[in-house]
Amino acid sequence: MNKAGNNPEFDQVRAIRWNGDHLSLLDQRLLPQREEYIEIHTVEETIKAIRDMVVRGAPAIGITAAFGVVLAAREAWATDQENWKNLVTYKLQQLGEARPTAVNLRWAIEYMQKRIERCQSDPVPYLLEEAKAVHAEDIEANRRMGDFGAVFLKEARAVLTHCNTGSLATGGYGTALGVIRSAYARQYLQSVYASETRPWLQGSRLTVWELQKDGIPATLVADSAGAHLMKSGKVAWVIVGADRIAANGDVANKIGTYAHAVNARHHGIGFMVAAPTSTIDPRTASGEDIEIEERNGTELLHVAGQNIAPENTLAYNPVFDVTPAELVDVLVTEKGAIERPDRAKIAALLGK
Amino acid sequence: MNKAGNNPEFDQVRAIRWNGDHLSLLDQRLLPQREEYIEIHTVEETIKAIRDMVVRGAPAIGITAAFGVVLAAREAWATDQENWKNLVTYKLQQLGEARPTAVNLRWAIEYMQKRIERCQSDPVPYLLEEAKAVHAEDIEANRRMGDFGAVFLKEARAVLTHCNTGSLATGGYGTALGVIRSAYARQYLQSVYASETRPWLQGSRLTVWELQKDGIPATLVADSAGAHLMKSGKVAWVIVGADRIAANGDVANKIGTYAHAVNARHHGIGFMVAAPTSTIDPRTASGEDIEIEERNGTELLHVAGQNIAPENTLAYNPVFDVTPAELVDVLVTEKGAIERPDRAKIAALLGK
Repeated sequence: MNKAGNNPEFDQVRAIRWNGDHLSLLDQRLLPQREEYIEIHTVEETIKAIRDMVVRGAPAIGITAAFGVVLAAREAWATDQENWKNLVTYKLQQLGEARPTAVNLRWAIEYMQKRIERCQSDPVPYLLEEAKAVHAEDIEANRRMGDFGAVFLKEARAVLTHCNTGSLATGGYGTALGVIRSAYARQYLQSVYASETRPWLQGSRLTVWELQKDGIPATLVADSAGAHLMKSGKVAWVIVGADRIAANGDVANKIGTYAHAVNARHHGIGFMVAAPTSTIDPRTASGEDIEIEERNGTELLHVAGQNIAPENTLAYNPVFDVTPAELVDVLVTEKGAIERPDRAKIAALLGK
Repeated sequence: MNKAGNNPEFDQVRAIRWNGDHLSLLDQRLLPQREEYIEIHTVEETIKAIRDMVVRGAPAIGITAAFGVVLAAREAWATDQENWKNLVTYKLQQLGEARPTAVNLRWAIEYMQKRIERCQSDPVPYLLEEAKAVHAEDIEANRRMGDFGAVFLKEARAVLTHCNTGSLATGGYGTALGVIRSAYARQYLQSVYASETRPWLQGSRLTVWELQKDGIPATLVADSAGAHLMKSGKVAWVIVGADRIAANGDVANKIGTYAHAVNARHHGIGFMVAAPTSTIDPRTASGEDIEIEERNGTELLHVAGQNIAPENTLAYNPVFDVTPAELVDVLVTEKGAIERPDRAKIAALLGK
């Protein structure tokens, strides 16, 4: 029984919801054990939720930030109807610093900031419509990416994906996981291998959970098993998302992406990156200019509250890495797919 | 304060001990939280301990098996002094099947089997001396490997190692970790990066623990961070052990070794394998002939008793992979080091 094949609209999860007068975020730290929403009423709570990874995934962070701008504007307008724009600007700077690597956060704030400049009266109704539009457009972009990406996977049968790039990481449907959903709905794919994605286990906790909800056969593997999987011929493509793409096509994404990319090239296996054009930052010249977030080493020392290394262990915990453009076979965006992306092709795409 | 540099004999842990009339094994499943020994009185208990990974690491499994043969012989002799050798042969076949990939297990059993054939009276005193000699020679071999391997690391400063290849994985001192100990004692190395080694976390639980005991600076990283570490110039060599080496130099070792090897070659970083010649199996022509153990997928779904993936998640859990000889820059054994190992060089080494 091919649930996804019978229902191409399969895509159940909504991790970000505007709930009357506030934002509800599915707390992704608790999945898959518990499905609980956190209710967010202020921009400070939004910043904390992003920093603490209640919500994660570059597009989802961007959408959350857009709603955070609404909350900031509402409070500022209520406080001082003369000076509210200055109050908001200060808050949005803090919001922009919640996490450093994903460019979608900055993109969403700048997008909303431009709308704020147009406001003459109570900004909330207008900004809320804009934030909802950012959300809806992300889902629509993901569905277009699904179409553009799926055509490359006609003979794929099985693919490997890393981290979580699905409905949880985006407004809905997903980037890399959206391509996988589309390819599965077309019956190009029979199954998906998900690497567990240490230390935060987005693969185990989130990707497998999402794929199970859609009835797409998923097999979990250790991150370190990717090369063995490729060598044994079990996967035809590696498909990942992105947290930031530089103007030359270098891709910052979850730690482990780069190792998969090197191994994919070594084994002659396709390497696809799926991300909306809002993830491409023309102001970032190359991967060397991308700040790689290092999170606390304790993320490596504890799992589910249990200590898995000796006390006082020093851990180095970069949570992203950079895959050079030359290792990317296809970059899929909502404006189309580029094979072997480079600076000129990306500039042309952004000019579309 | 350079503890190891001041004391080149540093090497505190003994995971395998003959304790008067039985075997004591440090239960490596409980480290680093608890240091508890399991008392082993029969070959059946030995088989269970190997299968359940109370003891792991190819050389340590071999030494444990040698003592297991003593226990099997003792029981058989006590049962039937006429037919004891037949009884033992049956038990040793079961012992040899406790785990499939490490050839040291088979090597140790065959070594002891030859000694059994010589026995005319109570076999225990003689076999026990032989098992103790297997143990002592492993430590001595590791120290020689340390000398042979360290010379390659004169300018290394920092290296990356995978899994645990130290005192816990061997009779003592270690293979890859023995080379690291020797290089650190000579002040060639300043620090060691250990990849955590999912799913069993030998890097987090065992390698970091051992290095802390010796005062060697160790930094833990996710397995998937290896490529990023190499790209950023933080490590000059990758050093690993082996569970089986084929006649052509292909190396079966802990899952993740192969990904590190591909990445090391991609970044022009040295890749060293350290293993005693008992790990080389002339009867295994190439890596394709090595059986790769697949353990239960639940090892990926639980950490420290906690569920980290949805119920009913399918997991693929190969616990070894094969690194082709052409990716190995140096193979270090107790008989010497070979650069760019191949069939001819290995045959010459074994003939020494």
